[in-house]
Amino acid sequence: MTDKALETVSLNDESCELEIIDQTRLPSEWVRLGLWRIEDISEAISSLRVRGAPAIGAAAAVGLYAASIRFEEGDYPSFARRFFACADTLAATRPTAVNLFWAIGRMKRVVERGANFGIEELKTALKREALAILDEDREVCRKIGENGLTLLKDGWGILTHCNAGRLATAGIGTALAPIYEGRRRGMNFSVYADETRPLLQGARLTCRELTDAGVDTTLICDNMAASVMKKGLIHAVLVGCDRVAANGDTANKIGTLMVAVLARHYSIPFYVCAPFSTVDMDCPDGEGIKIEERDPDEVRRLWYKSPMAPGGVNVFNPAFDVTDAGLITAIITERGIACPPFSKSLKGLSTSNGGDIK
Amino acid sequence: MTDKALETVSLNDESCELEIIDQTRLPSEWVRLGLWRIEDISEAISSLRVRGAPAIGAAAAVGLYAASIRFEEGDYPSFARRFFACADTLAATRPTAVNLFWAIGRMKRVVERGANFGIEELKTALKREALAILDEDREVCRKIGENGLTLLKDGWGILTHCNAGRLATAGIGTALAPIYEGRRRGMNFSVYADETRPLLQGARLTCRELTDAGVDTTLICDNMAASVMKKGLIHAVLVGCDRVAANGDTANKIGTLMVAVLARHYSIPFYVCAPFSTVDMDCPDGEGIKIEERDPDEVRRLWYKSPMAPGGVNVFNPAFDVTDAGLITAIITERGIACPPFSKSLKGLSTSNGGDIK
Repeated sequence: MTDKALETVSLNDESCELEIIDQTRLPSEWVRLGLWRIEDISEAISSLRVRGAPAIGAAAAVGLYAASIRFEEGDYPSFARRFFACADTLAATRPTAVNLFWAIGRMKRVVERGANFGIEELKTALKREALAILDEDREVCRKIGENGLTLLKDGWGILTHCNAGRLATAGIGTALAPIYEGRRRGMNFSVYADETRPLLQGARLTCRELTDAGVDTTLICDNMAASVMKKGLIHAVLVGCDRVAANGDTANKIGTLMVAVLARHYSIPFYVCAPFSTVDMDCPDGEGIKIEERDPDEVRRLWYKSPMAPGGVNVFNPAFDVTDAGLITAIITERGIACPPFSKSLKGLSTSNGGDIK
Repeated sequence: MTDKALETVSLNDESCELEIIDQTRLPSEWVRLGLWRIEDISEAISSLRVRGAPAIGAAAAVGLYAASIRFEEGDYPSFARRFFACADTLAATRPTAVNLFWAIGRMKRVVERGANFGIEELKTALKREALAILDEDREVCRKIGENGLTLLKDGWGILTHCNAGRLATAGIGTALAPIYEGRRRGMNFSVYADETRPLLQGARLTCRELTDAGVDTTLICDNMAASVMKKGLIHAVLVGCDRVAANGDTANKIGTLMVAVLARHYSIPFYVCAPFSTVDMDCPDGEGIKIEERDPDEVRRLWYKSPMAPGGVNVFNPAFDVTDAGLITAIITERGIACPPFSKSLKGLSTSNGGDIK
């Protein structure tokens, strides 16, 4: 990750631009985009050029800095008004992942507290906060990797869904972090990657980053997860998440609930890996999590040479589902591993590390 | 189904050809193929131009007639030798669906028993048997529809996987037969169709035939089945099958096991619909069912504008899985509905109707 070209989200210090890998072009093309217009950054988040809960939080933070460094407003009220409008635009891109709101909230607080700063001072403070969010995300990933690895054994088969790896964070990922950390220590895992319809993040992103890193990886269709579990090939499931409610109910990429039910049926531990910023203590349970529904044509025709379903057929295309807390073995965070009952263990972690958890 | 153009498998009496709809061209193009060369018929079965356990049985029977009507061998031993070679070629196309072997077996027995017939008489007997298999399949579908309908209520939400409808049989299907039969009687169902990766039979075929028939149909990705069940939208699951073992273990399209586990978790009845010819009383349990593995590029690049996974990644691509008998609520056949314990109920049905069940 020292190579700038591999970084999923970064600040280009020369151009003062948010830099991202355009993930809609993967696995075939590795294209980096430099962005600073708020509408371009919004478009990049909405259309999943950058995706993954921690990565969109980091991209929003760096993006708000890249936008605001160019503001010509010289007085605080005008600067703040424009900044908050940009923040609102980014907050409206995607509703489910809480990290987006968390990161935007941190950047907004810099402006709120900066009424007595000069504008240049404020811009410097915004840069500092954006870089802190990036750095913290890298450190959080590393710690999730270390904590998660304590639950795994060398040689295990691991099933993962969607992409919660390097391409979903500024660091080594959440669900894939224990695999990278294990590999660094000479351990080997066999990873089974659900392709993750309709957007194929598993096939396009997880398979790309794991094979690039030399990890033994097998691609399966989502509907084959039961088969590999039944064959005894899977010893643990690791997934990321977009929001964890206070009771442990967890929103993640559509299909995660299916994997969790299958894991329970086959008595396989099911682990959610999450930066603590993904835990929304204000959300009592999964009922409160808004689930984004996306364009039916993602299912009917996206990626394909020709439409794969009759044009008139109804399509239900939720981007996420909520896995009930009762199906989750443990939630692995940078602050430690939360075990059931989660309402108690998450509360315990929320007050640890003296952390500002919102 | 009076319109010849809609028939999935038929005999064109004028040209003496097997006629099929080329299902690899659906949903966009409706192309009928006329076949009589055994290598073309083999190719059509292997490459899924015709698919669905009952349909490939019927296609093999009609195909063997269309091939053998053209044999110029004038003596019985030469005719029989060539016929059995053709039968072996067709039997080698796909290993899992037992109907293929069952239909080929019926055609072979005509030849075995015809040593004293003249060649023309033998050809007439083969035609009679092929047409009988087609007719019986239509009647079997109708009865499965009637029997299955006794388990459903007007207005229910039904989830189905893959395609076990008109396009999988010579009649109105197996899993979709109760829906068509109900519709004929003025009932309405809301069908949720799993797209069924990697070959998308749900999106391409089930959605096409159900929307053509005016049935309320919603397409979902396979990994969304848990979500629609959790939302309470599904009252029963109906699937077809490729082989039922004597204990009730059932091989069907990959992903069926996933659906069955989810249905059990959400207390939704899970029904397998099958012609009794799909029951293999010689196969004690699912362990004995050979599962076909197919080309990895079906997952990596088929249908797509460009490859959707890195070329070097391993792929596991089984075409079927085995649903344990314990996850099946009932098996709906033309002879009646088998309930657990299946080893007893299937045995009972096997001796009913005085039927030749092998």
